Amino acid sequence: MLRLTFLGTSASIPTVERSLPAISLRGKEHYLWDCGEGAQRQMMRYRVGFGSIKAIFISHLHLDHFLGIYGLIETLRLSSSSVQQLKIFAPKRFEELLINKWDFLEVQEIKPGLLLKDSEASISAFRVVHSKESFGFIYAEHEKIKFHEAKAHGLGLRGAMFKEIQEKGHVKIGGKKILLEDVSWKKPGLKVVYSGDCVSCKSTINAAKGADLLIHEATFGSGFEKEAIERNHSTAKQAAQLAKEAGAKKLILTHLSGRYKDAKSLLDEAQKIFPNTSIAEDGLNIELR
Amino acid sequence: MLRLTFLGTSASIPTVERSLPAISLRGKEHYLWDCGEGAQRQMMRYRVGFGSIKAIFISHLHLDHFLGIYGLIETLRLSSSSVQQLKIFAPKRFEELLINKWDFLEVQEIKPGLLLKDSEASISAFRVVHSKESFGFIYAEHEKIKFHEAKAHGLGLRGAMFKEIQEKGHVKIGGKKILLEDVSWKKPGLKVVYSGDCVSCKSTINAAKGADLLIHEATFGSGFEKEAIERNHSTAKQAAQLAKEAGAKKLILTHLSGRYKDAKSLLDEAQKIFPNTSIAEDGLNIELR
Repeated sequence: MLRLTFLGTSASIPTVERSLPAISLRGKEHYLWDCGEGAQRQMMRYRVGFGSIKAIFISHLHLDHFLGIYGLIETLRLSSSSVQQLKIFAPKRFEELLINKWDFLEVQEIKPGLLLKDSEASISAFRVVHSKESFGFIYAEHEKIKFHEAKAHGLGLRGAMFKEIQEKGHVKIGGKKILLEDVSWKKPGLKVVYSGDCVSCKSTINAAKGADLLIHEATFGSGFEKEAIERNHSTAKQAAQLAKEAGAKKLILTHLSGRYKDAKSLLDEAQKIFPNTSIAEDGLNIELR
Repeated sequence: MLRLTFLGTSASIPTVERSLPAISLRGKEHYLWDCGEGAQRQMMRYRVGFGSIKAIFISHLHLDHFLGIYGLIETLRLSSSSVQQLKIFAPKRFEELLINKWDFLEVQEIKPGLLLKDSEASISAFRVVHSKESFGFIYAEHEKIKFHEAKAHGLGLRGAMFKEIQEKGHVKIGGKKILLEDVSWKKPGLKVVYSGDCVSCKSTINAAKGADLLIHEATFGSGFEKEAIERNHSTAKQAAQLAKEAGAKKLILTHLSGRYKDAKSLLDEAQKIFPNTSIAEDGLNIELR
C-alpha cells in the first residue's frame, strides 16, 4: 500500500488555501517529492510524521520547490537527539545552495534513471522540459511473485521450497526439476509518476505508460496556452491529453496558479479528455493498493 | 498610529498553531521584524500586504528568524513588474547566506544605533546576549510639536507662520520675536521595543525604558530557568521582571516553545509581576496611538 499526502499544491507563490509544492509518499519507507516553503508545518497540520523521512527528491532548483528543506533540516536536528540519515536527491549545484549542512545529510545529484531502491519499491528520475535541470519521478513497486497454489502443492512444493524456488528460479522434487514460472505469476507493483514542473513532453508520456497514478502540473487553464509555453508549464487540458496518451489509470492535477481560486474550470477541461481526473488540494490523502 | 501584527510566535520549530517569528509594523511605512519560514503566507492569511514593505530587520542569524525572507523575495519579484527597493538590515555575514540576490535588494549590516528614519519614526538596534551577533530593535516615533493654540493665536500666529516657527524656531510678528517653545509643547512619540532572542539583559532594560510596548521573548516558563540560561533564552517571569524594571507600559510575550500548547501558565507567572502582560498568538493585531 502507498499513502500519498499533498502538502502543498500552489505554483510559485503560496495562497491562503495552498502551500508550495511537496508530496509525501509513505509505502515501506517515507519519501518527499519536492519540499516547498512551509512543508514542515504542513506535515504537522496533516499529521504526516517527518522524523521518518528517508529521502527527499527535488524536481528542479526553483525556490518554491525546495526552500522548505532548510527549515525541515533544522527541525530534524533540533527535535531529535538521534536523527537518522537523510538523503537529498537534487539537481546539480544544490549543494552550493544548502546553507545548513549537517552530518546526517547526504546530497546526491540527480541523473536520469534509478535513484533509490528499498525492499518494496524504487524511485527513478526522468528529464522533463522546464528549467535547465528539471526532473520528474517514478515510484515503482517491485513486481511480486504470486503462486498458483493448487498447482504448486500438486507438484509437491512445501514450506521452505517456496523460498528456495524464488531464490534459485527452480527446485528439484523427487528428481524432477520444477521451474518458478510453471507455478507462479508476476503481479505488477503500483506505479506513480510525478511530472514536476514541465511543458507537456514525450518523456513524461513514456514515464507514465500504464501508471496507476499520474500527478501532473497544471499551472494554467484554457486561454493561457501561450503563457504555458513561454514559461515551460502545462495547462490542465494538456496534462489530460498526456495522461490519456500514456494510458494512465488516474490523473491528479497540482501546482495551480493562484488565479484559480476555484479549480472547477481546470477540472472540467481536463475531465472532458480524461474523466478520471482530480484536482489536488492541500491535505489531500490518497491510498493506493 | 502604529499597527502591529504578529505573523509567527513560535520558538525554533513551528507548530500547527504558531508559525516562526515575524512581526509586521505599519506606521507611516511598513516594516518587518524578523521573517521566519512561512511569513509571506502568514501575511496573506492575516491580510497584511507585503508589496508595501520598505525594510526587514533580522534580529540574528538563526534560521527560524530569517528563512521566510527567501520566499518573500521571490514572491515580490514574481508578483510585481515594478518591485520597489527593499532594505534588509541583518547581522554580519547575512549576505553570504542570501541565495537569491536581486537588484531591488539592499543589504545593510546591523550595528548598534540608528538604522533607519522615515518621516514619522526611526528604528534602532541594540545588542542583546544570545548568539554571536544578536540584536533587539526600537521603533521610536519622532516627537511631535503641539501648539498651545489659544496662546499662539493670541500672539498673532496665523497660517504659514506655524510652519515657519517650526522650521526656524522663532518668528517675528510686528517686530516682536516669538519663540517656538513659548507657544508649543513636545508630545513624545510611541516607543515599541522588541527583544529578539535573548537572556534577560541590561541592554534590553535600557532600550525599553518607558516604552509603550515591550515585545519580549519567553521561550520558557518556570522550572526551565536552567535551560533558559544554557540556551540564552528567557522565561516569562524574567521578561516580566525586565518590563517592570524598565517601566514599560505594556508587555507582550512571544517566541514560545512548542511545549506550551496552552500559554496560560506563562501568562500567569508574568502577570504576577507585571499585570499588563499579554501572550502573542499568530494573527494578533495591536493598534497603538
